[in-house]
Amino acid sequence: MNEKIAVIGSGLIGRAWAITFARAGYAVEMTDINADALNQSVELLKGSLEDLAEHDLLNGQDVDTVTTRISPQESVAAALDSAIYVQENTAEVLETKKLIYAELDGSAAQETVIGSSTSGFMASLFTEDLDGRHRCLVAHPINPPYLVPAVELCPAPWTDPASIDTAAAIMENAGHKVIRMRKEIDGFIVNRMQIALLHEAFRLVDGGYASCEDVDRAIKDGLSHRWSFIGPFETGDLNAPNGIRDYCTKFGDLIERVGHSQTENADFRGLLLDELEAQRRELLPADNLADRTAWRDRRLMALAVHKKHMADTLGD
Amino acid sequence: MNEKIAVIGSGLIGRAWAITFARAGYAVEMTDINADALNQSVELLKGSLEDLAEHDLLNGQDVDTVTTRISPQESVAAALDSAIYVQENTAEVLETKKLIYAELDGSAAQETVIGSSTSGFMASLFTEDLDGRHRCLVAHPINPPYLVPAVELCPAPWTDPASIDTAAAIMENAGHKVIRMRKEIDGFIVNRMQIALLHEAFRLVDGGYASCEDVDRAIKDGLSHRWSFIGPFETGDLNAPNGIRDYCTKFGDLIERVGHSQTENADFRGLLLDELEAQRRELLPADNLADRTAWRDRRLMALAVHKKHMADTLGD
Repeated sequence: MNEKIAVIGSGLIGRAWAITFARAGYAVEMTDINADALNQSVELLKGSLEDLAEHDLLNGQDVDTVTTRISPQESVAAALDSAIYVQENTAEVLETKKLIYAELDGSAAQETVIGSSTSGFMASLFTEDLDGRHRCLVAHPINPPYLVPAVELCPAPWTDPASIDTAAAIMENAGHKVIRMRKEIDGFIVNRMQIALLHEAFRLVDGGYASCEDVDRAIKDGLSHRWSFIGPFETGDLNAPNGIRDYCTKFGDLIERVGHSQTENADFRGLLLDELEAQRRELLPADNLADRTAWRDRRLMALAVHKKHMADTLGD
Repeated sequence: MNEKIAVIGSGLIGRAWAITFARAGYAVEMTDINADALNQSVELLKGSLEDLAEHDLLNGQDVDTVTTRISPQESVAAALDSAIYVQENTAEVLETKKLIYAELDGSAAQETVIGSSTSGFMASLFTEDLDGRHRCLVAHPINPPYLVPAVELCPAPWTDPASIDTAAAIMENAGHKVIRMRKEIDGFIVNRMQIALLHEAFRLVDGGYASCEDVDRAIKDGLSHRWSFIGPFETGDLNAPNGIRDYCTKFGDLIERVGHSQTENADFRGLLLDELEAQRRELLPADNLADRTAWRDRRLMALAVHKKHMADTLGD
């Protein structure tokens, strides 16, 4: 029998994790406090599996093979029984996290590692009082994890490094690229980077320097071309003949000067948000949001195919 | 005869612009104060043209057809004669920019628009005293412009909007995506966004939260997947069912809280740079920098092919 992973919560993120683990060969037992949601979950994720199969993103397996590895399970205790790993995906409410973690820690075998998909709470905020807090951590995906490989593993101060190793090995086995944090910080790495960029985007529109559309173009038609296969450090390292020191020396004054002008944030929830919303709704009427989101998912899938092909030919 | 564009400076950026304009059908006359560099320039850019042809990125034209549109020209005045547009690519030294702009403004016909590739100087810093300052602007590419479509057009306070229109029309005709700035700011848009991300990357390594490699992974295996076809504003707009207002409301507290913790920059030229360099050189020995840069260019080319295919099939 395949090793088992318990997925707690069958919403969008829980279902996406079920796909990623089942595709890698794990037996997945998925639970939800909402029995209706749980009953629909396998049917709902089948659509995504069919899209993946069409793009040859199921490692050569067919939809049925992967689907049969995923079972809804009404009892959390039964789902945890002999699971090697637990991925928790409940509501982003601190009290909910504390309650579910108390239940998970009480029911899971001592050596079972428990990762949370939370983006908003550090593990120290909801695991401090648990007997098994050493095996708890954050395993934050970029949605949907079956298309975007990065996952950040973030320990609480009391998380055992061996638990991080276990989670990392499972994630890598499922095709993920692990960001291994050394200690916790609010927002982790991914959202902190995203938010840093967003605040500069806010400042630029707020200051009247460019429109939303033009700021977006700087990323989608510009900086992202490199970033889609090398990060900002490697970008700098390759942007001057002698590497990162050369780069930070050559462009250091500009980097420092501009950095100094980025230390105040715009009030993005006031008048600026009215402006952003007006600009976005002109570019994309509200009625088209759902269609555009479906288009985004097709583009993400096509990019995953492209990157897989690149890894196989030019290398990473 | 094809309309003519003068490219001033035959270094890496000048040659890249020559390719982009010649590929679009313009006659390009390229000048350089260094006669040897100028003489070698066409031979040097032929290699890039061959790579582009191999990837079907010459709009169906062959290398010779495009190459014959590019001529070295010793005299700046002759290059400017009847040119519809001038792209300046001289050294990033303010005094040099002032000198060359005085020459260009003196020689070019009154209606000829003059764009600078500078990343470090706003047009107001080197065009203020010119008679023809109304037709001067910054046209800053992301290198190489024949692969990365974004170009930012930034006016000085005295730049005639009609000159921006002219430059934008030429750029779009050459396949570029124009970022049209409304007023100038140090670093323009692209580098300001890049620098905002870089400072957060510096802070995270400086604080010991993650390694260079892990921070890079958050971008290349994570955030860039979306950013490679939608910018940060559209990403937010599609990340909540009811668009950007919904997103900024739902995630507003996190965005604000994290933003507050990003208002101090790390000293990236001190001990941190030693650390960054040590980490990068362990990941990529200095001897391999040139090979990796060539690999980067192949990946950029493959991505350009992917994005062209996407534009033709799924749309932008």
